[in-house]
Amino acid sequence: MRVLILGGDGYLGWPTAMHLSNKGHEVAVVDNYLRRDMCREQNVEPLYETPNLHERVEIWKSHTGRSIGVTIGDLRDWQVVSEVFSRYKPECIVHYAEQPSAPYSMLDRRASTLTLMNNLEVTANVIFAVKEFSPEAHLVKLGTMGEYGTPNIDIEEGWLDIEHNGRKQKFLYPRAAGSLYHTTKVLDTDLLWFYVRTWGLKVTDLMQGPVYGIYTNESRMDPRLLPFFNYDELFGTVVNRFVAQAVAGHPLTVYGKGGQTRGYLNILDTLQCVRLALENPAENGELRIMNQFTETFSVNQLADFVAKAGTRLDISVEVKSIENPRKESEDHYYNPKHTAFQNLGLQVTPLSEDVLCEMMEMVMRHRDAISDGSIFSGKATW
Amino acid sequence: MRVLILGGDGYLGWPTAMHLSNKGHEVAVVDNYLRRDMCREQNVEPLYETPNLHERVEIWKSHTGRSIGVTIGDLRDWQVVSEVFSRYKPECIVHYAEQPSAPYSMLDRRASTLTLMNNLEVTANVIFAVKEFSPEAHLVKLGTMGEYGTPNIDIEEGWLDIEHNGRKQKFLYPRAAGSLYHTTKVLDTDLLWFYVRTWGLKVTDLMQGPVYGIYTNESRMDPRLLPFFNYDELFGTVVNRFVAQAVAGHPLTVYGKGGQTRGYLNILDTLQCVRLALENPAENGELRIMNQFTETFSVNQLADFVAKAGTRLDISVEVKSIENPRKESEDHYYNPKHTAFQNLGLQVTPLSEDVLCEMMEMVMRHRDAISDGSIFSGKATW
Repeated sequence: MRVLILGGDGYLGWPTAMHLSNKGHEVAVVDNYLRRDMCREQNVEPLYETPNLHERVEIWKSHTGRSIGVTIGDLRDWQVVSEVFSRYKPECIVHYAEQPSAPYSMLDRRASTLTLMNNLEVTANVIFAVKEFSPEAHLVKLGTMGEYGTPNIDIEEGWLDIEHNGRKQKFLYPRAAGSLYHTTKVLDTDLLWFYVRTWGLKVTDLMQGPVYGIYTNESRMDPRLLPFFNYDELFGTVVNRFVAQAVAGHPLTVYGKGGQTRGYLNILDTLQCVRLALENPAENGELRIMNQFTETFSVNQLADFVAKAGTRLDISVEVKSIENPRKESEDHYYNPKHTAFQNLGLQVTPLSEDVLCEMMEMVMRHRDAISDGSIFSGKATW
Repeated sequence: MRVLILGGDGYLGWPTAMHLSNKGHEVAVVDNYLRRDMCREQNVEPLYETPNLHERVEIWKSHTGRSIGVTIGDLRDWQVVSEVFSRYKPECIVHYAEQPSAPYSMLDRRASTLTLMNNLEVTANVIFAVKEFSPEAHLVKLGTMGEYGTPNIDIEEGWLDIEHNGRKQKFLYPRAAGSLYHTTKVLDTDLLWFYVRTWGLKVTDLMQGPVYGIYTNESRMDPRLLPFFNYDELFGTVVNRFVAQAVAGHPLTVYGKGGQTRGYLNILDTLQCVRLALENPAENGELRIMNQFTETFSVNQLADFVAKAGTRLDISVEVKSIENPRKESEDHYYNPKHTAFQNLGLQVTPLSEDVLCEMMEMVMRHRDAISDGSIFSGKATW
């Protein structure tokens, strides 16, 4: 299948590109290096350097003989969008091309505006491009479980049947996100749903939980093929951050009571899910929403897990509660459904001490590069 | 009260400015003439010319002795926003400053992008400005009944209590709008709700139905104080459009079966509602949503009403069904609640033949200016 990956330089974009290429799909990637620029701007560089996309594609080809197309450009620019769609004529578009950090989106007015305008304009351009150039293509969009927030009722997969005053209606599951970044994903979903209804597009919207890990079958071929590893408060997800804190000899910083519960998944399962979605496309006029996570954990459970893994590597790990910089419930009901991907055959990679130890060993090899300033930037406030 | 009206040149903005000024409030208006520019661009000029804002303010002062502040500038530009908020220190902000046409928002990619980016960025800037300059100010935002669409259950005022699998949660009423313009209002509501939760802002979001009429106590003082009157498919609301079609001797163009039902209100009642909202502000941390309409009519009922009024003026009116350029249900359940403004004391101005005849007489005085091209532009397609 001809697959266009938007945001193909990212933590998930690049591993997805390699994975789909490895499975025989014809892959092209687009990126404007926004994530790299933001990390540099905020002085929270990833743990190790990562070759640029052109270099990575060459490394990938040297190992596999497979080609991946590369375009460097800003998808807010219609000229770029139209050229890319005209050139690659995608049958499937995987849309990761957004500012991906919740704390960054709350930094200040400039960062908020960038997040809001970038994410919405790229999504709108992608919708318009599908309509104009590839109306039969399947759009696979990365949303987030964070769109739902933490309601006091069960979270269904995207939709909710409501009975009210004796009448019935099926609605998009009502959303209430916890950051501007997550809210932009809510807006994306609203926009996609409008155009699916109006133009009959076929869209899969993935409500993904936080991802951890860096190793995939493809990235194991060459360390230069590993994705970014951020361990800071802005761009590092919680497991990756805890692993780096443990290795650096810092306490794991649990925000507040640590009862915040979310659905997590290994990066290996992200790749499986995206591939399952694109190989089993949505129908015309369907907005298919799938909750993309495998296990739920509270922050305290994750901290305990990392501490135990540390013990195996003779690392003494302290866990410390700090004032929560976010506005969120630290103790809440959480029961999100996630059967859609199981039904498509997802093989779950559970979180384990083995997985955490392998990540810790990788971080230990780069221990000297860990910046205390990144671990304690104090920049994340709501 | 110091009131800042964003979009103060518009069909509702200018009458609101005069009304609040007349009631003793200290009023300033901001506009970038976007509506005027779009009408010129699309060659759908209003029925009669309207003095610019500086001229109108002078005319207003000559009749009443009251001053209204004017700033011409684009609220997407933070420089403009911050200057305006610093200068006027508003206690209440009435936010009308959006691209207001559903058909325009569906014209083509450029018009769609303008609508989406303009409306979202202005709303975001207003939120950021309230936080930075006037955190205690009350933001009164113009939304639309169109945010709800036409669900098969009763439409409540903004919120819905849901019981699901034995547990309960109150949510924003799920929305499913019928155009990109209406969808931008959904996105606005999502954004406002996020920042109300996060920063404790006080916001009233007005879910307004289509407005008709031009005469208010203030605009009757001088014909140069009348608001825009658009009768075209892009910027004219249905009643105003039917009135112009009747006077021009054209059939009233009913889209499809004409069973489309909406909640309408007279422009006089818009002014009452906005004033009631600002004189009875929301609380800190409250997103108060009020359904702002007074009566529901189907398009067929409106056409019949206009035809009857025509008879009184010896105008023979034909009603004709044409292919519906919109994607919408032409026959649907519709039961929206609207008690919030009644509870605040709204005195309803019902639609009547008198109201329609006065509008027709006004249009007859400008009969020669009616452009057939505006009535049948064929531009409105979804």
